[in-house]
Amino acid sequence: MARISASKKSRLPITDVPDAADAALRELAQTRVVIENVSHEIDGGRFPAKAVVGEDCVIEADIFSDGHDVINAAIEWRCRGDEMWHTAPMRFVDNDRWAGTVRFERLGSHEFTIIAWRDLFATWLRDTEKKINAGQDVSLETIEGDHLVEAAAEQAAGSEHEPALQAIVKSLNSVSETTHKLTILLAPETRRCMRKAGPRTNLSRCMRTLEIWVEPQIAGFGAWYELMPRSQSGDMSRHGTFDDVIARLPYVKNLGFDVLYFPPIHPIGRTNRKGPNNSLTAGPNDPGSPYAIGSEDGGHDAIHPELGTFEDFHRLVEAARAEGILIALDFAIQCSPDHPWIKEHPEWFDWRPDGTIKFAENPPKKYEDIVNVHFYREAIPGLWYALRDIVLFWIGHGVTIFRVDNPHTKPFPFWEWMIREVKTQHPEVVFLSEAFTRPKVMKRLAKVGFTQSYTYYTWRNTKQELTEYLTELTTEECRYYMRPNFFVNTPDINPYFLQTSGRPGFRTRLVLAATLSGSYGIYNGYEICEAAPVPGKEEYLDSEKYQLRVWDMDQQGNIQDDIRLVNRLRREQPAMKAFTSLRFYNAWNDQVLYYAKNDKASGDFVLFHVLLDPQNSQEFDFEIPLWEFGLPDDASIEVQDLIHGNHFTWHGKSQRLNLDPNQRPYAIWRLIPPGAHR
Amino acid sequence: MARISASKKSRLPITDVPDAADAALRELAQTRVVIENVSHEIDGGRFPAKAVVGEDCVIEADIFSDGHDVINAAIEWRCRGDEMWHTAPMRFVDNDRWAGTVRFERLGSHEFTIIAWRDLFATWLRDTEKKINAGQDVSLETIEGDHLVEAAAEQAAGSEHEPALQAIVKSLNSVSETTHKLTILLAPETRRCMRKAGPRTNLSRCMRTLEIWVEPQIAGFGAWYELMPRSQSGDMSRHGTFDDVIARLPYVKNLGFDVLYFPPIHPIGRTNRKGPNNSLTAGPNDPGSPYAIGSEDGGHDAIHPELGTFEDFHRLVEAARAEGILIALDFAIQCSPDHPWIKEHPEWFDWRPDGTIKFAENPPKKYEDIVNVHFYREAIPGLWYALRDIVLFWIGHGVTIFRVDNPHTKPFPFWEWMIREVKTQHPEVVFLSEAFTRPKVMKRLAKVGFTQSYTYYTWRNTKQELTEYLTELTTEECRYYMRPNFFVNTPDINPYFLQTSGRPGFRTRLVLAATLSGSYGIYNGYEICEAAPVPGKEEYLDSEKYQLRVWDMDQQGNIQDDIRLVNRLRREQPAMKAFTSLRFYNAWNDQVLYYAKNDKASGDFVLFHVLLDPQNSQEFDFEIPLWEFGLPDDASIEVQDLIHGNHFTWHGKSQRLNLDPNQRPYAIWRLIPPGAHR
Repeated sequence: MARISASKKSRLPITDVPDAADAALRELAQTRVVIENVSHEIDGGRFPAKAVVGEDCVIEADIFSDGHDVINAAIEWRCRGDEMWHTAPMRFVDNDRWAGTVRFERLGSHEFTIIAWRDLFATWLRDTEKKINAGQDVSLETIEGDHLVEAAAEQAAGSEHEPALQAIVKSLNSVSETTHKLTILLAPETRRCMRKAGPRTNLSRCMRTLEIWVEPQIAGFGAWYELMPRSQSGDMSRHGTFDDVIARLPYVKNLGFDVLYFPPIHPIGRTNRKGPNNSLTAGPNDPGSPYAIGSEDGGHDAIHPELGTFEDFHRLVEAARAEGILIALDFAIQCSPDHPWIKEHPEWFDWRPDGTIKFAENPPKKYEDIVNVHFYREAIPGLWYALRDIVLFWIGHGVTIFRVDNPHTKPFPFWEWMIREVKTQHPEVVFLSEAFTRPKVMKRLAKVGFTQSYTYYTWRNTKQELTEYLTELTTEECRYYMRPNFFVNTPDINPYFLQTSGRPGFRTRLVLAATLSGSYGIYNGYEICEAAPVPGKEEYLDSEKYQLRVWDMDQQGNIQDDIRLVNRLRREQPAMKAFTSLRFYNAWNDQVLYYAKNDKASGDFVLFHVLLDPQNSQEFDFEIPLWEFGLPDDASIEVQDLIHGNHFTWHGKSQRLNLDPNQRPYAIWRLIPPGAHR
Repeated sequence: MARISASKKSRLPITDVPDAADAALRELAQTRVVIENVSHEIDGGRFPAKAVVGEDCVIEADIFSDGHDVINAAIEWRCRGDEMWHTAPMRFVDNDRWAGTVRFERLGSHEFTIIAWRDLFATWLRDTEKKINAGQDVSLETIEGDHLVEAAAEQAAGSEHEPALQAIVKSLNSVSETTHKLTILLAPETRRCMRKAGPRTNLSRCMRTLEIWVEPQIAGFGAWYELMPRSQSGDMSRHGTFDDVIARLPYVKNLGFDVLYFPPIHPIGRTNRKGPNNSLTAGPNDPGSPYAIGSEDGGHDAIHPELGTFEDFHRLVEAARAEGILIALDFAIQCSPDHPWIKEHPEWFDWRPDGTIKFAENPPKKYEDIVNVHFYREAIPGLWYALRDIVLFWIGHGVTIFRVDNPHTKPFPFWEWMIREVKTQHPEVVFLSEAFTRPKVMKRLAKVGFTQSYTYYTWRNTKQELTEYLTELTTEECRYYMRPNFFVNTPDINPYFLQTSGRPGFRTRLVLAATLSGSYGIYNGYEICEAAPVPGKEEYLDSEKYQLRVWDMDQQGNIQDDIRLVNRLRREQPAMKAFTSLRFYNAWNDQVLYYAKNDKASGDFVLFHVLLDPQNSQEFDFEIPLWEFGLPDDASIEVQDLIHGNHFTWHGKSQRLNLDPNQRPYAIWRLIPPGAHR
C-alpha cells in the first residue's frame, strides 16, 4: 500500500505550498458565484452576438452559488472604445436562470460582461424573518444585522451612498432595544439602501467579456422589393435606366416596401455571354447575365453604361431616400472573362497549364461566362483589400445595404475580416447572405458577420415543416446571431409550390413570409402571380437574368392589396417586429398554420390564421390562447379583425373559423385582453 | 451624400494598409477550414471532458470549408507533459459532422486539438473522374494532376513518404501519353500515398487545445454496496468493527459488487448528539450520527476508536482488494462541536456576537450537532490545504474512492482546485458527488471535476420520467462530463415507491439501476426489501444513521439472486458497459420500459424489458429493432434469454410478451443477428 508522507495530523505547514498552486487557488476562489451559459455567448465568445439599436436586448445567464445564500447579478456594458461602463440589473427567472435588459442606443461594436455576488444583508433579512415568524429569539441576529449595516456604511465612505447609510447607522445607534433596532433593520428604506449599496461579497465576473454588434433597425425588420433596372423601361425594345427606376419608386412606396434591391448594375462581359433562357449562345442584342461582371467598360466599381451614369445613380439613391426607401446592391464577386482585373491582377485567378484561365465549373458542368477569383496564395492581401474597397466605394455612393451572392463559395475568414473592416467605419451597413446551402454553413456565415440570411423558407410548405423551421430560427441559439430574410421568390427560385398553386398560393406565401419573419422580400412579378417555369425546373421561363422583360403590375388578379395590407400592419403593430416572440397554437387542421406574435412593451398581441391549401376551403376549430393573459378557458376577450378593422368579442377558448382560398386564405386578429389599451 | 476617398478605380495602394488590419487578416486567413461545435469542448474549453482508460473515446466536430473542395481532418492528442503528439484520423459522418476515435492508454490529464485541411488531390480525383465519366477531354487535368504529385514529392523531401512519392513521379515521367499518365494518377497506390503524404492545403486548427481527463474503469462502470461498519457485529449489544466488515466481504463479493462504501468512520462528537430516529436527546449508549465528525479522539484524519485501529483498517482494505473490491470512504466536511479544528483553527468557523459558534441551520430549522466551516476570509488558503491533505491522507491509507457529502454547499472553486490537486498526483482517484439539488448545480459539480454524480434516479418512476431523464443523461452535452451513479436507496432516501411496492418493486428498481446506468449502488437492507419508513417521510425507521442495527440478509424473500444475476451480466456482456449506447424502443404498454444497449466493438446487443407496475402482470406487444441490423420487418433473428441461457428464434418485428411481478418483473435478451458470433 503506497503511503504518502502525511502524518496522522494531516495538516501540512502552509509554507510548503508551491506558489503556482497557491496562485491557482486564489484565482479560482474569485469566482465563487457561477455565471455560465450566457445567452449571447456564441462559440465560447469567438463570435459577436447581434442586437438592434433602440430595441430591448434581453441577456440571460445561469447564475448560482454554493449553499443557500441570496445572490444578485447585473450586466455591465459599454460601447467599444468608451471608458465608462453602464450597469443593468438582472432578475431571477427560474431554474437558476437570470435575465437583464439592455437597450443599446448607438450603432456598432459593444462589449458586456456579467457580475454576480452574494448579498449577505438580503440573506440576513430572509433568515431573520423566517425566525421571527417561527417565534424564535433574534437578539443575536439583530446585532449581526447591525454589524452588516455598519460595515456597509464604512465601505461606502466617500461614495454617493454614504449619507443614506450613515443616516441608518445613526438611527440604529439612537436606540438600544432589540425590537427598535429590528424595526429599523427591516424597514423598506434600509432594504433598498443595502440592496443598492450593501457589500457585494464574493463579487464574481463572467469568464469572458463578450461582444455584441448593434445594428440599424433595418437589419432586423424590413420589407424588400427586388427588380431588374434594365426591365423598367416598359418597352421591350429599350434597355431600362436608373431614370426608369426613379419612375417606379412611387409604386414601390405605395406597396409599402422599405428596401429596393437590384441585381448587379455593373458592365456585363461579352465573352461566352449567355442568351435567353440560359442558352450558350447570345445574339448581338442579348444583354447577358448581370452576374457576368466586367467588360472593357469596367468592373465592380463601374456602372453598366446603358443604365446611366453615376450622376443618374445618385439621383436614384436620393429619390428613393426621399420616399423612405433604401437601395440595396448586389455584391457578386465573380468576374466575366472580360473583367479588367484579369489583366491587371492575373495573380487573383487560376490558370490552366495551357495558359488559359480556369472557368467556373461544377464537374461535369461548366460555366464559361464566369471566372472565379481565388483568395489565397498571391491574392492575399491584395484581393481582400480590393474587395473591401469595392464595398467602401459603393458606400461612398450612398449604398448601405449589400445582398451578397453565394458567400459560401468564398472563404469565411475573408467575410469575417471584410465585414468587420467595413462595419467598424460604417456600422449602419447591412450585409444579406445569399447562401442556399447546408445549415451549418449558413449559420457560420451569420456568425462571421452577415447581418441577415436568405433561408430555406421557399422549400418549407407544410404545417410541420414551417413549425419546425420557425421554432429552430426563433428559439435555438442561432436567434442571437442569425436573422432570416424570407424571400417568397427570387430570380433564381420559382418555387414548385407556386407553379401550381395559383393566386391563393401567392397570397398564402406572402402573408406567411411577411408575418413569420422580421425581414421578407418579393422579386417583381410575384404581385401578378408570375409562375411560368422552365419546364420541370425551379427557374422562371424567359428569366430576366438573360433578357429584358416588360411588366404590367396592375393586371387583373394582382395581389397588390394583400401586399399593402401586410406591409401596413407590419408598420402599425409592434408585435410584428418581435420575431422571437413567435408562438404556434392549436388549430385542429393540418392545412392551417396558426400563430401569434406579441410585444411586451406595448401589450400588442396579434394572431394569424393562414390557409396552406390553395385549392380547398377549410373549416376548423382553434384555441384562443386565453391562458397567456391568465384568463380561464371560459373567459371572453375582445378582438379586432385587423383586416377589416371591426371589433367584437370571442367567448370561450374554443372557436371555429372557415378560410376559403378564393375569398381570403388568411385572417389576422388583435387580442385586447381586459384592461389593455384599445 | 458622404463620399470616401475611393476613386473610380477602387484599389487603394496596399502600402496604406495599417499593420494591425493586415495582421488580423493574416491571422484569420489561417483558419479557412471551419472546426466548430467540438463534442468534448465544455463551456468553450473552460472545463475538461472525461474519458475512461482503455475505452474508445469518440470525438466529434463540425468541419467544413467554403466551396466544394474535398477536406480531411484528424485529431491530435497527447498526455499532458509529453512532447510527442499522436494522430487519429477523422471520418465524415453526415451533415458536416466528423468523428474520430481515440483510445487513451494512460490515466490523467490529456490534451487534444483537431486539424483539418483541403485535400487538393482528392478534389482533383473526384472532379476528373466525373469529367471522364461524362466523356470530356481531361488532358489538361492530367497535367494538373501530375503537377500535384510532383509538388507533393518535393514537399516530402527527407520525410518517410519521399521514396513512395518519388517512385510515382518516376513512373509518371517514364510515360508520355495522357492515358498512361492518367492510369498512374488514378491508381489506388497513388491515392493512398497522396492521401497520407499529399499537401495539406489551408491546414487549419481548432481554436483551442482542449483537455480530457482519463480516469480508471471504475469511474465509468461499477456496482456499489453501502454498509455501516458499526452495524456489522450481528449483535445489537456490540459495536461493529473493521474485523466484522472483513467477515462480510465474502458476502459482498458473492453478490458481485465492485465497491464497498462506508459512511464516515471518524470519531463522533458528543455535544448535542442525536438519539435514535433523529431525536434531539441521545442516551449515554447512543452512538450518534457518523456525520457529526470529530471528538477528543480526533477529526477527519482519525478513526472512531470502537471501529478499530489504522492497522485494522489496513487489513480491511487489503482483504477487500484481495476479493477485487475497492473501499470507498465518505468525505463529509462538516464538524461536530467537539472537532479539534474548532480550537486549533477558530478562523475556519463562523462565530456569533456572543462568542458562541454558529451551528448549521436552515431557518427556522437548527442542526446543533453540526457546525460548518466557512471557506473564505481567513480560511484561505489554510482550510483548503487542510481538506486536500485529508484526502491525500486517506489515499495514503489505501483509499482511492471518495463519496463526497453535500458538495453543493461548499464553494465550486474549492472542489475544482482540490480535485485537480489530488488527481494530478493520483489520477486513479474517484470522487462521487452526493448533491441532490437543482440540475444546473449538479452539472456544475461534474464540470469542476467530480468523477461521478448521484442523480434523480430514486424519484424517476414512470416510463415517461425514466425515458426523459435517461435521454438527457445519455444524449445531451452532460454525457461528456457527468457520469451518473444510480443508487436505488441510501441511508437518507427510503423511496416512497419502495415503501408500498413490496418485493417486485425492489427487483424492478434494482434491474433498472443496474442496466440503465454505468455505475449503480444499493445500501444494505435493500436485498431484504427493507422499507419501513418514519411515517410520511422518505426516511428509514430506526435508521442506522442514529443507532446500531443487526441485519439478516439471508432471510426469506431476499433478492440476492437478482443482484447476483445483474452483476454477473454486467461483467459478461460488453453492451452493459456502453452507457451512451442506450436506446428506447416501442413496447405498447405504459407499464413496461423497453430498451437496449450495444457494444460496437464486440457486436453485443442486449435488450431489456422491465415491468414498472409492481402489482399487476402485463401482456404487451413490442418491436424487435431488426432495422438496427439492416433487417426487414419480417426477418428472423436468433435470441438468447440471458436469464436462463437458452437460445431460440424470433420471427418478425412484432412480438408479444407477458411479465408478472410475482414471477419475474423483467426479461433480458441478447440479439444475435445473422453472421454474428454466438
